[in-house]
Amino acid sequence: MGKVRNVLFIMCDQLRADHLSCAGHPHLETPAIDALAKRGVRFPRAYVQSGVCGPSRMSYYTGRYMTSHGATWNRVPLSLHEKTLGDYLRPAGIEVALAGKTHMLPDLEALERYGIEGGSALDALLRAGRFEEIDRYDGHSPPGKESGYADYLRQHGYLSDDPWSDYVIAAEGPGGKPLSGWHMRNVHLPARVAEEHSETAYMTREAMRFIDEQGEKPWCLHLSYVKPHWPYMAPAPYHNMYGAKDCLPLNRDEQERVGEHPVLAAYREHEESVSFSRPEAPGIVRPAYMGLIRQVDDWLGRLFAHLQDRGRLDDTLILFTSDHGDFLGDHWLGEKEMFYEEALRVPFIVVDPDPEADLTRGTVDERFVEAIDVVPTILEALGLPPNDHLVEGRSLLPLTRRIHLESWRDAVFSELDYSFREARQILQRKPSACRAIMVRTDRWKYVWWQDFRPMLFDLLNDPKERHDLGDNASYAHVMAQMEQRLGQWLRERKTRVTVDDAYVEARTAKHRQHGIFFGMW
Amino acid sequence: MGKVRNVLFIMCDQLRADHLSCAGHPHLETPAIDALAKRGVRFPRAYVQSGVCGPSRMSYYTGRYMTSHGATWNRVPLSLHEKTLGDYLRPAGIEVALAGKTHMLPDLEALERYGIEGGSALDALLRAGRFEEIDRYDGHSPPGKESGYADYLRQHGYLSDDPWSDYVIAAEGPGGKPLSGWHMRNVHLPARVAEEHSETAYMTREAMRFIDEQGEKPWCLHLSYVKPHWPYMAPAPYHNMYGAKDCLPLNRDEQERVGEHPVLAAYREHEESVSFSRPEAPGIVRPAYMGLIRQVDDWLGRLFAHLQDRGRLDDTLILFTSDHGDFLGDHWLGEKEMFYEEALRVPFIVVDPDPEADLTRGTVDERFVEAIDVVPTILEALGLPPNDHLVEGRSLLPLTRRIHLESWRDAVFSELDYSFREARQILQRKPSACRAIMVRTDRWKYVWWQDFRPMLFDLLNDPKERHDLGDNASYAHVMAQMEQRLGQWLRERKTRVTVDDAYVEARTAKHRQHGIFFGMW
Repeated sequence: MGKVRNVLFIMCDQLRADHLSCAGHPHLETPAIDALAKRGVRFPRAYVQSGVCGPSRMSYYTGRYMTSHGATWNRVPLSLHEKTLGDYLRPAGIEVALAGKTHMLPDLEALERYGIEGGSALDALLRAGRFEEIDRYDGHSPPGKESGYADYLRQHGYLSDDPWSDYVIAAEGPGGKPLSGWHMRNVHLPARVAEEHSETAYMTREAMRFIDEQGEKPWCLHLSYVKPHWPYMAPAPYHNMYGAKDCLPLNRDEQERVGEHPVLAAYREHEESVSFSRPEAPGIVRPAYMGLIRQVDDWLGRLFAHLQDRGRLDDTLILFTSDHGDFLGDHWLGEKEMFYEEALRVPFIVVDPDPEADLTRGTVDERFVEAIDVVPTILEALGLPPNDHLVEGRSLLPLTRRIHLESWRDAVFSELDYSFREARQILQRKPSACRAIMVRTDRWKYVWWQDFRPMLFDLLNDPKERHDLGDNASYAHVMAQMEQRLGQWLRERKTRVTVDDAYVEARTAKHRQHGIFFGMW
Repeated sequence: MGKVRNVLFIMCDQLRADHLSCAGHPHLETPAIDALAKRGVRFPRAYVQSGVCGPSRMSYYTGRYMTSHGATWNRVPLSLHEKTLGDYLRPAGIEVALAGKTHMLPDLEALERYGIEGGSALDALLRAGRFEEIDRYDGHSPPGKESGYADYLRQHGYLSDDPWSDYVIAAEGPGGKPLSGWHMRNVHLPARVAEEHSETAYMTREAMRFIDEQGEKPWCLHLSYVKPHWPYMAPAPYHNMYGAKDCLPLNRDEQERVGEHPVLAAYREHEESVSFSRPEAPGIVRPAYMGLIRQVDDWLGRLFAHLQDRGRLDDTLILFTSDHGDFLGDHWLGEKEMFYEEALRVPFIVVDPDPEADLTRGTVDERFVEAIDVVPTILEALGLPPNDHLVEGRSLLPLTRRIHLESWRDAVFSELDYSFREARQILQRKPSACRAIMVRTDRWKYVWWQDFRPMLFDLLNDPKERHDLGDNASYAHVMAQMEQRLGQWLRERKTRVTVDDAYVEARTAKHRQHGIFFGMW
């Protein structure tokens, strides 16, 4: 092992923290990810800054909370002025590449305002969130022109204008008619695509190709799998590798529906929640979800072997995580977004090749980690400035290298803007009035809801979050403390974005040097 | 009077709310401003969003609080992505011009990042905060190349490389040696510049010229006087028009220095505070300050007569205000920045020429106004979209036009980042840990200080703010309420900056239209 020269930042989409064998899943086996954890540190209490792809990823890429980066939901472009990994690493001569999903939407208005020429290299880079897109593919609709995947499929015999819809997310129905994986009732069937041509396989090979092409040039690769995110259609043999008996028990009970929070009630009216509340649904979808994870794990095993062959395990910082989890029927919900552990807690493994990290290999660190820690960890590993006038996370290297710290965070924060969701219409809210902020400490999970009562869970006595105490007046003192935490957190957000602390230091009380002599008698 | 076609947004620099005869000053006469108030509505409870030029002005120009626009002090550039008056009005074909001061610093990093060509029209516009600079001059150092003032002075016989330092802010000393107005002990003397060539005179003529040149084309002119800001050197006859006996009584007592707040104590160590605490200082500086105000008033009288001659009073919305006040020795302070009324409360007059506003002409409206109300007032007056996904203020037209409102704000907010000030060094703080936020309601003024105890003033029983109750435990319940107000306010900040509410409305629960069918059974 040696000094960090490269970064491999692996993200799964919608992978729950509890769906790994190293995290205790009793039936799902993830040997490659488990081996990764043995080479590094696993953080079982890692949380995303929002339980939905877009804002969560923008926090991963900027190192900033949602309220700071402002991309509050999937369809909200990240403001062009927000800096991402690419802004920090590219000036140091490190290629920052993307294979897979980012959910980055271009800030078209700003591109026009600054007169940035369409089709130019700068335009492409700014649109892509400062990633070089070696293959961009967001996974929730047919691959676009940024991806070679559709052509690849056609070259391999999947002849269709839309081979993704017809083969990758479709099963073979009666009379050869495709059955769409959009319908969750179909996902016990195998995809019509061969495993070797599936999304996970294709994107892993893209990653290997990029790494080989880089040779000895330093790189940072964001390998961003679109799985196990819906459509939950797995190719054989993963489609039926697991059965209903292999799934984790459902985390829900009837009591949860009594006196439920208004926004939660609205989410439970969403189609995905209604579908997952069907008695048969979890037993059909969860096995496919597990198969998709197992497939990712198998391909990660090949990828890590490939890295080892080329000596890259010795100089590559590897981060493995997900953008959020998936309810899969827990709490009578589908999808994510609500503040339960199933949605917000994600796998998080850091393999720091530096010899200073040898002492912590294979350990589990229970300290709180947030998605915003990825950027500062990478910056420190590469010896780059922390840019901490913008970056709100903390580097995890003192944890992997057992460097003494005065303190560590004792709470994590996550946010939601549900304005784009049907829940807003159900609740007859304005788009600007659909915000929520969670603070989770060791003991408590508190959620402030704009214009609704708060939620409160006692994680010591109710770790499964079945009993919302938010309308229980006897917890008013706890909620008041949590409100103070939220207020403090909001006041600490980094708003002075155009200049850093060194700039301030150099200009403090220096007006005379600028020819300004106010206050002299 | 008629519909609004043009906007004249007049700002003084460092003009206290109580230094107008219409606001009750017993000796200072401001007949032109008083006449303006008679034609419109005067708002005696108007507050700035920060008690220092840069951030206050950025709030005026963006319609956003300091924590939202991020330009936290004078030397912090406004992020290029923040939209200003010019961004909103120019697309409607309205020229947005500046005569005088903006304190706008260019966001050089962003200009470089976006590859914006130096010297291009776009570059100039972006650097200038989207104002067309007909004459830009910030007033606290010799006029730069953006202003014609230095050349003008030389053309009128003030022969010097730096006629501003040698004539405009200098008095004639013994043996013809200039005595600098930077030294406040000199400001009872007349400036060496003739009144007709002084800053206020020059800039008013620039404004008149612009208005005439526009003819019937619509315009928005920001006439931004650099006075009565220091250097407090007034030209004859204004330099001794007032004497010490004409000044408002000093608002300070010895009791204020007992148990004083640590940041306040540090500010009282600043040179300007020490100088203003000299017994003779207020009686020398305040008369010059009053003379400079009287001079502004005289030129405003000429400007308004000019507008009337050309029929422009009938179709021009006029706003008159200041970027903050001036302690002038009150509370043992010089300058501004602290949260006392003398620094944060500013003159605020709106003349709405629309006949619908006839009912309110000459009235005084005691409702709370904030600097961020300027942009939405102008947008509504010109019939432009409110852009209220960004703009945080409220239009004042319902007030000038007596349109029924369900509610109005019951508090105002202001902020400080003292990281660039000597106080930070005195207190040994890091640049990122120097923030404060004030909430002022009808009864209370509460200031949260990062890592220091709060301040609290009971404005009912202590309108002069002599007794800080922030360390008095018997007011803990009041302070807890104020903390809640602050938390609520912070949660309402507008962070989704790239898309507006209509965008959200059009895309709510529309995933199927985008070919995304998640959640179907």
